[in-house]
Amino acid sequence: MTDQSGPSTTRRGFMKAGLAAGGAVAAGGAAHAAGDPLITEVQEWAQMTGEGVDATPYGLPIRFEDDVIRRNVPWLTADPISSINFTPIHALDGTITPQGCAFERHHSGAIELSKGDYRLMINGLVDTPLVFTYEDLERFPRESHVYFCECAANSGMEWAGAQLNGAQFTHGMIHNMEYTGIPLRTILEEAGIQTGAKWVYVEGADASSNGRSIPLEKALDDVLVAFKANGEALRKEHGYPVRLVVPGWEGNMWVKWLRRVEVTDAPVESREETSKYTDTLEDGSARKWTWEMDAKSVITSPSPQMPIKHGPGPLVITGLAWSGRGTITRVDVTTDGGKTWQQARMDGLSLNKALHRFYLEIEWDGSEMLLQARAHDSTGYVQPTKEQLREVRGLNSVYHNNGIQTWWVKANGEAENVEIS
Amino acid sequence: MTDQSGPSTTRRGFMKAGLAAGGAVAAGGAAHAAGDPLITEVQEWAQMTGEGVDATPYGLPIRFEDDVIRRNVPWLTADPISSINFTPIHALDGTITPQGCAFERHHSGAIELSKGDYRLMINGLVDTPLVFTYEDLERFPRESHVYFCECAANSGMEWAGAQLNGAQFTHGMIHNMEYTGIPLRTILEEAGIQTGAKWVYVEGADASSNGRSIPLEKALDDVLVAFKANGEALRKEHGYPVRLVVPGWEGNMWVKWLRRVEVTDAPVESREETSKYTDTLEDGSARKWTWEMDAKSVITSPSPQMPIKHGPGPLVITGLAWSGRGTITRVDVTTDGGKTWQQARMDGLSLNKALHRFYLEIEWDGSEMLLQARAHDSTGYVQPTKEQLREVRGLNSVYHNNGIQTWWVKANGEAENVEIS
Repeated sequence: MTDQSGPSTTRRGFMKAGLAAGGAVAAGGAAHAAGDPLITEVQEWAQMTGEGVDATPYGLPIRFEDDVIRRNVPWLTADPISSINFTPIHALDGTITPQGCAFERHHSGAIELSKGDYRLMINGLVDTPLVFTYEDLERFPRESHVYFCECAANSGMEWAGAQLNGAQFTHGMIHNMEYTGIPLRTILEEAGIQTGAKWVYVEGADASSNGRSIPLEKALDDVLVAFKANGEALRKEHGYPVRLVVPGWEGNMWVKWLRRVEVTDAPVESREETSKYTDTLEDGSARKWTWEMDAKSVITSPSPQMPIKHGPGPLVITGLAWSGRGTITRVDVTTDGGKTWQQARMDGLSLNKALHRFYLEIEWDGSEMLLQARAHDSTGYVQPTKEQLREVRGLNSVYHNNGIQTWWVKANGEAENVEIS
Repeated sequence: MTDQSGPSTTRRGFMKAGLAAGGAVAAGGAAHAAGDPLITEVQEWAQMTGEGVDATPYGLPIRFEDDVIRRNVPWLTADPISSINFTPIHALDGTITPQGCAFERHHSGAIELSKGDYRLMINGLVDTPLVFTYEDLERFPRESHVYFCECAANSGMEWAGAQLNGAQFTHGMIHNMEYTGIPLRTILEEAGIQTGAKWVYVEGADASSNGRSIPLEKALDDVLVAFKANGEALRKEHGYPVRLVVPGWEGNMWVKWLRRVEVTDAPVESREETSKYTDTLEDGSARKWTWEMDAKSVITSPSPQMPIKHGPGPLVITGLAWSGRGTITRVDVTTDGGKTWQQARMDGLSLNKALHRFYLEIEWDGSEMLLQARAHDSTGYVQPTKEQLREVRGLNSVYHNNGIQTWWVKANGEAENVEIS
């Protein structure tokens, strides 16, 4: 197998494979022989005007892309009011996730809270308790950063073995957007942090309140009180008008409809950080305060939802990698279940605590493959196997599964979620 | 006036202005005194569950943001079939433009072209004419880059003087997205470029065909044959399934529904590069081959569509800057019509041929302002005044107006598009 991971490809490779053909050259597979009426005849769309655009002042995806949507897994949650949906990562490219198909998790539905009704309270161990309106917040200096948001339970169903058939379902509790907001630090300093303050407790305006404790050190570091994602207002289900952004840390802490930040001397040990979002270890004890999302990767195509539809020859393997601790410095890809690894080509933006895109262009010989990716981050950490994780944490875990994922790509191009040891 | 352009603000400044208040402290302006029922009472949205999200698998903006949409200016074009719409840049923040509200220009409507019906022909001075299907294109190595796309006519109506009241209309023929595609170079090399080749002629599959000539040097540099924007498929009106991306160059060359690239020895001098997209100079001669978009900037808030709604005190001034020749190294902002300038704070991503976000945080004294921004790019070029442009090009121009824009902000916070000399 040849590694063609450079940005340019060889002419010979593509021509040999009969990938494209014109003039009198017959092609292999696709319908683009010399007599192709799509080339030889003037098509309808070139003879008449298309649709005006004024009627769609907010443009939606074309109908042919109707399947590139968030999806849920009905059996995962008891009720749609407390549910989760998954980003169609298998069908996306690049690094930015459009907000319309960005996954979100809600604990008591998505509430509709107007800017006029919005208030943010800062209280607890501060010199002056403060309450801000939305318009107040707009008067503070703001910043924009691209960050990934990953649910701690992403890939959680895979802890015990291969369960869900598709990158959207195994790894789609993640999105990556350019968030605009105010550093939480700015707002806390405005209230005046008192001696003895060590934590903040953040909660949302919805019925779940979804309260979480965050160490003051993190709160003063890179946490944002955010009101925009990819330039525009947050969608209702993403916390309109204001959510917390806790870069690199588990998504549950990114409290939506943020209503209160209390400065405290100790963690609250709330429902959301005791009964949930802790890992039950082999001996029954709970591993908690596991906020940072470890380095992880997934091949998005080919994958169960993205089978190979062509014969042998040039094949683009691509995927995403990320780390809550920094950037991704390298991704390795194997096509033989880990016997041999090739270094993937990293492409595009390489930003702190953000999704990275990788590619490996190969000449596929048409035989079956066991595809895996393995991420390295800027701290030197290397993504482990699921087996390695289980050795440390036992079999009862759900959260923070960053183990290596395997797709079994068959000779017919179809792919399946499997586990190999 | 104090320049608070640092990333942190002073506590004193905000407290003095009565911006926020809690406990028993009465506030100035906003309804957040101690008795505010939004704080003291448990609200409806905290007592009951919100809506499920499964019913909106592609999430749309919340109804409160219904005005953040593309808009047209009906009198600008004779027919909606050949029309343009404008990005609501006044209401956006950060740098990424969501595809749903990204401006677009169409010359004969938006056609609906499926991936199955899509063909791309490479012909002319090549060793082997080629025709690609969409699936063929997916087998080539691809790249993602964030680029701005600006219509050459952006701000064109302002050439003769202040016309349109709002940043959306004066400067909204621009968007900034992460494009994923194949370098055009890769595809041309696949066909084999013959000796004597100096240009390519690109055209779309719609009735207008919108043919443009591009020097081969540019075609082999950073031009992309793109199929995704911000990770997902192009919207119909943005050229689904494939458009050309010509970084830093005028938007008309970013041919949508790309159907053919012909390698030629000379420019075609098509309708779209002779009768249009040239500048008529004072002596009646045409200035053409003006492809690169010069450095430019605009203050997006405050602006006519974004009046100041609060009294004196902290005010965030923000805007966008860009250059078709590289990055933006600096933006200056004046509040007194150019008598004095302050250096703005650049924020977030600084990428080649992409939008840059700037901020200037000031203590507004409540008096009227003449707001302007002035961009500097990485080539050392400084954005000129409209007067300076007119001295060179006369008064008949429309395209490539990158002159400095002025907003007159009145004491009541309302803003108006004006021209000062």
